[in-house]
Amino acid sequence: MEELAFSFDFISPYAYLAWTQIHGLAERHGLDVAPRPVLFAGLLNHHGQKGPAEIPAKRAYIFKDCLRRARVLGVPFAAPPSHPFKPLLALRAVHACPHEKRRALIDGLFAATWGGASAIGIDDPRTVARIASERGIDGDALVASADRAKDALRSETDAAISRGIFGVPAMEARGELFWGLDSLDLLERFLRGEPQPDAGEIAAFLDRPATAQRV
Amino acid sequence: MEELAFSFDFISPYAYLAWTQIHGLAERHGLDVAPRPVLFAGLLNHHGQKGPAEIPAKRAYIFKDCLRRARVLGVPFAAPPSHPFKPLLALRAVHACPHEKRRALIDGLFAATWGGASAIGIDDPRTVARIASERGIDGDALVASADRAKDALRSETDAAISRGIFGVPAMEARGELFWGLDSLDLLERFLRGEPQPDAGEIAAFLDRPATAQRV
Repeated sequence: MEELAFSFDFISPYAYLAWTQIHGLAERHGLDVAPRPVLFAGLLNHHGQKGPAEIPAKRAYIFKDCLRRARVLGVPFAAPPSHPFKPLLALRAVHACPHEKRRALIDGLFAATWGGASAIGIDDPRTVARIASERGIDGDALVASADRAKDALRSETDAAISRGIFGVPAMEARGELFWGLDSLDLLERFLRGEPQPDAGEIAAFLDRPATAQRV
Repeated sequence: MEELAFSFDFISPYAYLAWTQIHGLAERHGLDVAPRPVLFAGLLNHHGQKGPAEIPAKRAYIFKDCLRRARVLGVPFAAPPSHPFKPLLALRAVHACPHEKRRALIDGLFAATWGGASAIGIDDPRTVARIASERGIDGDALVASADRAKDALRSETDAAISRGIFGVPAMEARGELFWGLDSLDLLERFLRGEPQPDAGEIAAFLDRPATAQRV
């Protein structure tokens, strides 16, 4: 089955909101969602960029925006116990998890982070183990093996960067990249076969010289 | 008439695309568009943030995204002669322009930047003067007075920052802020009276402690 790659980090509320939508979208187009856990902080570090939560005015806006979008989508959305938090254990646990159980595990980890009244956070090994166990995965074994998935997470993050990814969520299908919750409509238009910008059109923009630079 | 404030910089293709939509939206809700030219670089400097054009992977994506969105909106979109370019003269010219002529001037300046085959750029005083004159404004007088609008542009940018604005386009109506082309649908829902996040909901997010920080 053709893949729809979904790069994400649990730290991102937009990744959570997009995750609630991506399976329906993939099914409508006969695609198989391939979750790709990446470290958002690694993307930011590589691109020398601040994250939204690191700019106070943007942080305040972003949460309001997510509350609005969650209401429109009709999905639960609430504050995790802390933010930003350490997503490393949860991301590595997904890498350590058998492929056929990953969707259920990600569902549980996202729900425990952003999913409403039960938001309990996912930076504690016992919580991650319990969430996994509730979904038919041996939680203690998963947490014990998460440490060995360090390299897998690092490789996935580096590979995302090499494919042009600079933020999450990022969706890739049939060679095209879409970034952000707000691009799901454009992804769907692409999958329906609507015309896309061609290489020449894009090159016209990228070839333009800069005549100004911030100091 | 109640105002819909539209903060923008000509440097932003998303501000151009949003400008093509904002008047129709404002009319549907009996609002009067109040254009607020601000220096995007000033917002970035204040927030210590990189602009999209300063991150190569994001720059490539952004132009493609704009091409896609322009096609969906059915508006012309093409590369300006250079990018990033110096928007100072054009922004100051809008500040120096009589209020009743501003919409026509902004239309002309945006069209000359992003608006299709005729994109000629707006960093040259003769071009700005010609665009103004074509719209019934004394172009030479406008360009001559633009220099005296330095302080007005700086004040507008500072005022935007003080109201929580961190990017363009930014729309404000009835005390609510919306950021980005992608938020026009949320702005319209707000204006139609759909429920908004309340202060308590938002505070729940903002009050959460950070338990991780990038190094």
